[in-house]
Amino acid sequence: HFQTNIGAGKNPQILLFQIKIKNYCSIFTGYLMNERAEQIVHEFPFASWLCAMLHCFGSYILADLLLGQSPIDYFSNNSSVILATAVWYLIFFCPMNLFYKCVSFLPMKLVFVAMKEVVRVRKIAAGVHHAHHHYHHGWFIMMATGWVKGSGVALMSNFEQLLRGVWKPEKNEILHMSFPTKASLYGTILFTLQQTHWLPISEANLIFFFTIFMIVCKVFMTATHSHASPFTPLENLICPVFFGSVSSGHTSHHHDHHGASHEVSHPSPAPAKTKEELNEGSRKRKAKKAE
Amino acid sequence: HFQTNIGAGKNPQILLFQIKIKNYCSIFTGYLMNERAEQIVHEFPFASWLCAMLHCFGSYILADLLLGQSPIDYFSNNSSVILATAVWYLIFFCPMNLFYKCVSFLPMKLVFVAMKEVVRVRKIAAGVHHAHHHYHHGWFIMMATGWVKGSGVALMSNFEQLLRGVWKPEKNEILHMSFPTKASLYGTILFTLQQTHWLPISEANLIFFFTIFMIVCKVFMTATHSHASPFTPLENLICPVFFGSVSSGHTSHHHDHHGASHEVSHPSPAPAKTKEELNEGSRKRKAKKAE
Amino acid sequence: HFQTNIGAGKNPQILLFQIKIKNYCSIFTGYLMNERAEQIVHEFPFASWLCAMLHCFGSYILADLLLGQSPIDYFSNNSSVILATAVWYLIFFCPMNLFYKCVSFLPMKLVFVAMKEVVRVRKIAAGVHHAHHHYHHGWFIMMATGWVKGSGVALMSNFEQLLRGVWKPEKNEILHMSFPTKASLYGTILFTLQQTHWLPISEANLIFFFTIFMIVCKVFMTATHSHASPFTPLENLICPVFFGSVSSGHTSHHHDHHGASHEVSHPSPAPAKTKEELNEGSRKRKAKKAE
Repeated sequence: HFQTNIGAGKNPQILLFQIKIKNYCSIFTGYLMNERAEQIVHEFPFASWLCAMLHCFGSYILADLLLGQSPIDYFSNNSSVILATAVWYLIFFCPMNLFYKCVSFLPMKLVFVAMKEVVRVRKIAAGVHHAHHHYHHGWFIMMATGWVKGSGVALMSNFEQLLRGVWKPEKNEILHMSFPTKASLYGTILFTLQQTHWLPISEANLIFFFTIFMIVCKVFMTATHSHASPFTPLENLICPVFFGSVSSGHTSHHHDHHGASHEVSHPSPAPAKTKEELNEGSRKRKAKKAE
Repeated sequence: HFQTNIGAGKNPQILLFQIKIKNYCSIFTGYLMNERAEQIVHEFPFASWLCAMLHCFGSYILADLLLGQSPIDYFSNNSSVILATAVWYLIFFCPMNLFYKCVSFLPMKLVFVAMKEVVRVRKIAAGVHHAHHHYHHGWFIMMATGWVKGSGVALMSNFEQLLRGVWKPEKNEILHMSFPTKASLYGTILFTLQQTHWLPISEANLIFFFTIFMIVCKVFMTATHSHASPFTPLENLICPVFFGSVSSGHTSHHHDHHGASHEVSHPSPAPAKTKEELNEGSRKRKAKKAE
Repeated sequence: HFQTNIGAGKNPQILLFQIKIKNYCSIFTGYLMNERAEQIVHEFPFASWLCAMLHCFGSYILADLLLGQSPIDYFSNNSSVILATAVWYLIFFCPMNLFYKCVSFLPMKLVFVAMKEVVRVRKIAAGVHHAHHHYHHGWFIMMATGWVKGSGVALMSNFEQLLRGVWKPEKNEILHMSFPTKASLYGTILFTLQQTHWLPISEANLIFFFTIFMIVCKVFMTATHSHASPFTPLENLICPVFFGSVSSGHTSHHHDHHGASHEVSHPSPAPAKTKEELNEGSRKRKAKKAE
């Protein structure tokens, strides 16, 4: 799939096998953090296995859905499915949890997290390629396909939770974007601009630099258990200009100032809408609604 | 898309551009009526933009889903997406709300509403055509495709609300049909009957008369802020005959009589099921359920 | 569809017509058991009809969705849709409930239940065939397609309920499998093993024996109003070995022992995880989660 697009010669079968195993380990240790994941694996092993498959292959399912192809097309790779099943089984059912202890050991975990970001960036690039193949000038389609390839199961989190019997409609990944989803969105825009020759950089260089950026961010966030997004300073510069307020991804430091003013640490060059103008606009629209 | 089916010569590019702008304006002023639409646009601009795109292109998404094609196929029209994005931005972020004030000015609003109905009827006809092209004798498929083209985002309202973090499962457009959805349903039946030569009328005449009917109804309902459906008298005549009760679209006038009797203002020619017969049938079926 | 795959010569048109009627009768008497089905048919006849169509054709819709084809492709068979509509109308609106009384008469009901199982097994076989035609070596795709063909609307029960205004996210057919869904899952695995020549049995024999098994089970369960699953003894033998606990489908007899020990009536040959080991593993994983 993606490796043939980017350069199959550089990824021998054995290396690909190792990358896949590490990717699945990283996915499942993340999967364990989900609500009820631990509980349902013993009571409802089939549902747990199906959730695990969604976590591993959700990106392919969503990309195929967007492009009107069979959503379970990737499941024709029997070896990948069997490999993911074996990793899932070992993580949950290995005697004395040996396998889970190995993959959770912090240095190992950081290696897996780095591998996962390598895979993610390559998937985004492959998604943009795949959409470009079907729609040569469909920029929005390329961006959408790259985005779902990068974000994977996170974008269908509501329905993956529904499979586990959990339903939380007030939150979803598009409303409250986690770091990987947001990074995939920015990445897919960059890759689409590169594909349509608006960004003067070669694909290999863009993959390299974006992968380095993602690895550094994720390894740092995993090692320090931090949730601060590296995009926040840039968003706090741009969003007040275009959207008249701080973005939802602002840090707790800005929370204190949120009530006082919409202009925070970076004075914006263009005249931003003041809070009074926003309220006046909202009041007038609400008055019209009431009619 | 639809304009090439119906007669591209009659719609020069400039007129099409104007029709699209008015269509998007009308869609977004309706979108503003939705719960939390105002609130999320400042906090979550990306989710708001995605909802706006669903409102503009929901009909194409649903029709493509029904016919097994890529649901984001219409997004290959980059100019339409950029135009819709520009209208969305101007409505929500124009300084001092100038743009919103212009489009909400009642005479302008009525023009936009009329334009929206012209577009809706043409979409229904195009949907029936499109399905006929794939399934020459698939009457139900033609009706379904025309219906989703006419109703648009309303038919996926539950999931469009979910995107905004709102979940109201007790209501949906199929259970409680709004006027546009019901009109699209009746319209798609008429257009399918015309397509399969059961209705002896030319397509151009049917489009003309149905468009006039829709414009008159919607302009009247918008100008008087009325919610009365023009279909209610006809439904109250037919439904007691076939389904043994008044339809759910009855006016408030009938609400008072609803508890007393199932037969209201129009005595039906065929013997309708009396309330006692209905209850007896229900009681027997419930008794069987309890076994 | 399925009859051409298996052997059209054995199913003349009249016999097929009779089988379809009995299948639809059986489906609708089951549909009546659903929450609010009785209530909505008089108030919301269109929504009721749409639910009824989902119940009849849900298997075809899901299989087409999985294989990336038009989900309403089966609705091109106008005669099947009209026949199902006629049966739906007669069941709900026949004067004095004559039709419903006929189909609920226990000997008739058992005939219909048997017919439904004949249809189900043939659908599973046809689903595996259909997927095999598209993916010659996609074992998981074949199993998935056969499974959704056998289970039908049950697998989308959450969304079929949503159409009726009911939302119960804590339950779904994958978490809490009913007997038909579980039997379809085991059946599709058998049919896929047969299709890929791992199971040394002819397709006709497999269809025959599996149909006999399903008819015997369902007729017994319908006649005695029992909910005991015939798979429970086998699952209670296998699940403790592989998944370290009894399956969720255990009978009430085992409920009393559930708290005391994970090993029930059948001592497993391989060393199963003891409750202490499970708890230790869970505790360690939860400790890591809290970090």
